[in-house]
Amino acid sequence: MAKAKSLRIIPLGGLGEIGKNMTVLEYGRNMIVIDCGVMFPEGDMPGIDLVLPQFDYVVQNQDRLRGIVLTHGHMDHIGGLPYLMRRLRAPIYGTALTIGMVRRQLEEAHVLQQADLHIIDERETLSLGAFSVHAFPVAHSIPGSVGLVIDTPVGSIVHTGDYKLDETPAGGRITDLDALRALTPNGVLALLADSTNADRPGRTPTEKLVADELDRLFDEAKGGRIIIATFASLLARLQEIMVLAHKHKRKVALTGRSLEENVGLARELGYLNAPDGLIVPVDAPIPDGELLILATGSQGEPRSALNRMAQGEHRQTQVKPGDTIIISGGTIPGNEEEVGRMLNKLFERGANVIYGKLATVHVSGHGSRDEMQAMIEAVRPRFLIPVHGETRHLHLHARLALHTGVIASDGVFILNNGAAWTTDGFRAWLDAPVPANDVYVDGHLIGEIGEAIMEDRQRLSQDGFIVALIPVNAHNKLAGEPQIISRGFVPLNGSRDLMREAQKAIRQHFQRGQHVRQDSIEQTLQNFFYRETRSRPVVLPSFIQV
Amino acid sequence: MAKAKSLRIIPLGGLGEIGKNMTVLEYGRNMIVIDCGVMFPEGDMPGIDLVLPQFDYVVQNQDRLRGIVLTHGHMDHIGGLPYLMRRLRAPIYGTALTIGMVRRQLEEAHVLQQADLHIIDERETLSLGAFSVHAFPVAHSIPGSVGLVIDTPVGSIVHTGDYKLDETPAGGRITDLDALRALTPNGVLALLADSTNADRPGRTPTEKLVADELDRLFDEAKGGRIIIATFASLLARLQEIMVLAHKHKRKVALTGRSLEENVGLARELGYLNAPDGLIVPVDAPIPDGELLILATGSQGEPRSALNRMAQGEHRQTQVKPGDTIIISGGTIPGNEEEVGRMLNKLFERGANVIYGKLATVHVSGHGSRDEMQAMIEAVRPRFLIPVHGETRHLHLHARLALHTGVIASDGVFILNNGAAWTTDGFRAWLDAPVPANDVYVDGHLIGEIGEAIMEDRQRLSQDGFIVALIPVNAHNKLAGEPQIISRGFVPLNGSRDLMREAQKAIRQHFQRGQHVRQDSIEQTLQNFFYRETRSRPVVLPSFIQV
Repeated sequence: MAKAKSLRIIPLGGLGEIGKNMTVLEYGRNMIVIDCGVMFPEGDMPGIDLVLPQFDYVVQNQDRLRGIVLTHGHMDHIGGLPYLMRRLRAPIYGTALTIGMVRRQLEEAHVLQQADLHIIDERETLSLGAFSVHAFPVAHSIPGSVGLVIDTPVGSIVHTGDYKLDETPAGGRITDLDALRALTPNGVLALLADSTNADRPGRTPTEKLVADELDRLFDEAKGGRIIIATFASLLARLQEIMVLAHKHKRKVALTGRSLEENVGLARELGYLNAPDGLIVPVDAPIPDGELLILATGSQGEPRSALNRMAQGEHRQTQVKPGDTIIISGGTIPGNEEEVGRMLNKLFERGANVIYGKLATVHVSGHGSRDEMQAMIEAVRPRFLIPVHGETRHLHLHARLALHTGVIASDGVFILNNGAAWTTDGFRAWLDAPVPANDVYVDGHLIGEIGEAIMEDRQRLSQDGFIVALIPVNAHNKLAGEPQIISRGFVPLNGSRDLMREAQKAIRQHFQRGQHVRQDSIEQTLQNFFYRETRSRPVVLPSFIQV
Repeated sequence: MAKAKSLRIIPLGGLGEIGKNMTVLEYGRNMIVIDCGVMFPEGDMPGIDLVLPQFDYVVQNQDRLRGIVLTHGHMDHIGGLPYLMRRLRAPIYGTALTIGMVRRQLEEAHVLQQADLHIIDERETLSLGAFSVHAFPVAHSIPGSVGLVIDTPVGSIVHTGDYKLDETPAGGRITDLDALRALTPNGVLALLADSTNADRPGRTPTEKLVADELDRLFDEAKGGRIIIATFASLLARLQEIMVLAHKHKRKVALTGRSLEENVGLARELGYLNAPDGLIVPVDAPIPDGELLILATGSQGEPRSALNRMAQGEHRQTQVKPGDTIIISGGTIPGNEEEVGRMLNKLFERGANVIYGKLATVHVSGHGSRDEMQAMIEAVRPRFLIPVHGETRHLHLHARLALHTGVIASDGVFILNNGAAWTTDGFRAWLDAPVPANDVYVDGHLIGEIGEAIMEDRQRLSQDGFIVALIPVNAHNKLAGEPQIISRGFVPLNGSRDLMREAQKAIRQHFQRGQHVRQDSIEQTLQNFFYRETRSRPVVLPSFIQV
């Protein structure tokens, strides 16, 4: 429970990681939540579909929850809502596109009735209990993105959301620092600011560069098809591409479910303009030189449209010599190998593929160091809490802030998820943290899979397993021939001798010992297999009473 | 067998991949091999230690093998030799540092007696049967790197080795294009050229930039320790760092076995100059401001020196606030997450870490597109065979070559490993390929692990396994309660109900069926677990006769 006259800011996700952004603000009997995202699993989380923030603190205090305010419609900011809304009812606020995307997700998860969805204007003020929440427009890679100024009884808090200070962004929507300044006439107590690109010097290149480069590539591709893979959520980019397609007299075909859904939604809500007749089916009889295909698959995802084309498994279209394929999306760390394999296959099919450093066909939606510095200097907060970044980004953001001189050395807080940052408007300190672990989603299982299972899976992936079925009598004496079952360890055909030796090792173990236990057999077998193969499979002896 | 009057060039590795470079040249009864490297496993090869080229063709034709010629001492060019030399005897040629590194490896593998090691000068000519092999110096990230001109009865072949056209490289050793031109007065039949950076426009930045940037960072780090992580094989970089340490009056401590070994070897052979007293033990009592630690770990490898420091597990030294840590090595694709996790831990310990785009503390040792173009224009070959690259790099290299106009459209060959590219000096064609698959090394097993095991491991890593022990009588009727063993699937504690239901499904299966077989039970259980959990563990039913 928050103290009577103090404000608590508790990040439940997004600190020390890129993903599952979620922040709680509390004052007395009032709680609001900013964003509720998911994280996509890293390589050390095998078999995991999604990672959620731990919602328990919000669920336990739902009687105080005044509302959930969303900064924009990306999955790392809204993807957790279908799971949270299974556990509580709450009003949700966001701009029209954001709310449109949330509505679709909640519908699919059959929890739409749990939420009161409220569309806000990008400059609207919300009154949520003790909090006044003012939105202001920011430039990001999806339309309808906002930052928030939150007036609280102890002072104003600024949450930037995801932003860049692009002067020539897609759609002309710039981050409105003037509005931000006007909203904070009495200064800012604390700034929570995007740290994603804290390791990139200078400014993030403008989206205009991408538009210009695509324009040039469209010229070069004359006569052949153009296939562009991008994130379905980069709606600003999709708008640019539609404009260019129209200019170069190409029709646009969409392939990939998320792309079709997002474009449909954005058009419906007026966030994406495409002249009538521009969009055609993928298998429409259009000459190559007049067709542009927009596809999912910039990350080489196995079932994405572009990867299916690369593998010759797309039902409606194939890649062929003469195609120009443009990968208009950055590679998320961890996906490099999958993307590389897909690119190799596309080249094998004779396509000309433009990716990576070959041309400026993608820029980040997050500001770089100079923009982060400009934000700090525009807001001039008493306290800075870097958010939205891995630990290294938070630290680099903090160092940058101290370097500006705007913030005193006791004014920067690098928090962990769950930290209860508390302030009375003058000082700030940390109350006891709340639980904020990773919650793994694996199929139907939510939160049941933990580190032990992850470690088992990692060991299994390295060296497979051995199950030894050992018949024993009532006195735990060997009462038959042990059987060995194995997968992922050594080829079954070529290892008969090895398995016979293992059986022998089990027999010898019984001959030596008085009270043979499963765990001592396990040790014997682990030693045996390591000696013979220098591998360490998971070994599970199982006594069978006969 | 090669035809009497034709030359065959057979890449056994390095095409369609970065790693395990190995090329066979044959003319009549003469065979030579250029390089013999290993590849480090990708993410889709779980549990694999190393990947070797398939040596069988060379082993089967060892009576014709005149020698193995090495271009430089990196593992992707020499790391396969300890495995090849178990299977044949051959003379091996390379410059002094290359041979020094090979000698150490062969000694460790106890196969030194199989090899006749010959040190060649970087401009020497070797006569190997029908082949005259001329070395010429190239700039790369390890000293003693050479390219090769190979005169054959049907014409001259140029193999670039790994190179860049750096005008101000470390140690002042530039790629000698004049020597290359002088060695090929009668033109070049075929060029085999490094494709690594075919997706990087322009020129690779000069190593001089790194030296200047390090110099600047050394100034900024005054008073604190400097820790630099780099590849132990980047000996040219190590030399630069030693010079800068001396200039900035710092002692140098080495930590990490490969680094200590390589520095020792390079000093012994005169490839690395360090004044007496410069190198000190890691735990020497040196003031922070006068110490530089060189560490392994630029890839975040779990057991590397820097990662042990990041985890607080290094025996002799710890990371502390005030340390400046410089990651002076590029991240190899696939290692991004491990590197990221290590960086996070280093920041948590209070260090200032310089990495990635924050400063020019690393440049590639391979030339970029403009350099590749310059090489083609210097050599002006009849045929180009792009080597040393993934499929996308080979294709981009080929397109670049055609774009220069130097090479006719029938003059570029994109080959697969094992392709037998054959020429009579005028035309070129492909003979029947030789086997050139990936050979996996996993502990003691060499070549025994195949795709089936890889697939099992990948499935095990996603969802773990279930072994169902099913007691049956002589008529295959259920004769007791089935037992279920599982790992990596669901938590054992929380899944008792699920497992009881699975036992019930087995009992029901026996009640329904007449001739119950293990594979029908497998299907039943797979369906059951997928329905209940949306996961697909490996399911292995095992009948136990009682």
